Amino acid sequence: MKSMLYGVSVGPGDPGMLTLSAVEAIRDCETICYPVKKAGEKSTALEIARSAVSLEGKEIVELVFSMDPEDSVRRASEKVALDKLCGILDSGKDVAMVVLGDIGVYSTYMYIDQAVRDRGYRTKVIAGIPSFVYGASKAGLPLMLGNESFCVIPMAKDSADRLDEALKDMDNIVVMKAFKSIDTIISLMKANDVPLERATVISNLGMDGEYIGPLVADREYGYFTTVIIKRCSRI
Amino acid sequence: MKSMLYGVSVGPGDPGMLTLSAVEAIRDCETICYPVKKAGEKSTALEIARSAVSLEGKEIVELVFSMDPEDSVRRASEKVALDKLCGILDSGKDVAMVVLGDIGVYSTYMYIDQAVRDRGYRTKVIAGIPSFVYGASKAGLPLMLGNESFCVIPMAKDSADRLDEALKDMDNIVVMKAFKSIDTIISLMKANDVPLERATVISNLGMDGEYIGPLVADREYGYFTTVIIKRCSRI
Repeated sequence: MKSMLYGVSVGPGDPGMLTLSAVEAIRDCETICYPVKKAGEKSTALEIARSAVSLEGKEIVELVFSMDPEDSVRRASEKVALDKLCGILDSGKDVAMVVLGDIGVYSTYMYIDQAVRDRGYRTKVIAGIPSFVYGASKAGLPLMLGNESFCVIPMAKDSADRLDEALKDMDNIVVMKAFKSIDTIISLMKANDVPLERATVISNLGMDGEYIGPLVADREYGYFTTVIIKRCSRI
Repeated sequence: MKSMLYGVSVGPGDPGMLTLSAVEAIRDCETICYPVKKAGEKSTALEIARSAVSLEGKEIVELVFSMDPEDSVRRASEKVALDKLCGILDSGKDVAMVVLGDIGVYSTYMYIDQAVRDRGYRTKVIAGIPSFVYGASKAGLPLMLGNESFCVIPMAKDSADRLDEALKDMDNIVVMKAFKSIDTIISLMKANDVPLERATVISNLGMDGEYIGPLVADREYGYFTTVIIKRCSRI
């Protein structure tokens, strides 16, 4: 059992943002796996991989990891997917599982990695460009300078309090999954006396409805919306 | 004046962590610039670039940006460097300035970029893998999962309070420049009831004294030391 599972970060969508190590792993592995929530779902990560490396002749395998609210359904789906994956590894093939952005940033891959290692297989993860790092470069903004602090707050049910705290303590704040929370962000910035000009919205990069610009209330933002707030802007 | 300054992130040191866009920019530019604090200083960024792309036949230019405490000395050094850089751009050559890690993470490049744009030139920045993203991948740790928050605190004179706040509010904390602050980190974790097992030290990756392991008080850590604290570990 010498085969290896590679967890391969393919970056934020721009094929130029693949690393040399990612390209090498995708090129050298006989099998490319991609995780989906439902059978037949399209994988953006697979398309990014394909745009940089020819996948011709490779075995392409979909692995369904259900997000069903029912625990038993999720576990059953996970068992099927892991059995399939480990079956390929047992046949002596190396596998590259492709993951959007960086594998350490809000990716469920690390659970899969742990489960595969628990079954006695070898794994290796390859870092990639997180979407917020790419977004900042596209907006021409530094994420942090000097001795500034930095944080990422994903918007969810109970995130308003966290963002409120961050707007008091942190120099640079990236608000992810901000699509439905633009009004909340604006009112929290106002409440904390952070001028709205300090915010830059990065939305649907490279997709329909791409927008890089100021935080404006009366505007529609795409599903993939991140807001970078530089509380102590020095540039 | 159609030439372009590329700010090229070359990643954390591993040549495999260069992106395809970084390789392309280094390959296509006639001139490679690298910033140093003192004339004659070695540039790790340049060595990383050289390990991935042959620099033969290219013009390699050192640009000194002094870090002298005296404001006038820094400004004079900056003027000389910018004149030199803009002279090359005026001659119609594209320039790649190479920068360690990601260009948006504690890099002074963004000041240079702004100054060059203020002089009327075109610039483009290319994102890269930040050291903390690479460190997490090497340690096999996710930076954040689900809806967890994440922050980076660089240790400096007044950073203990910031770390104390982060240990109360944030799910995942990366402490950078931690070399001299191991004792402070340990005592703040204890004060906030965060078990020391939640911390992983990543020190001098790929260099002498490399260490990836638990946070232990009675141990020497290298100069390049980062601590990842997962307050709400779920893996």
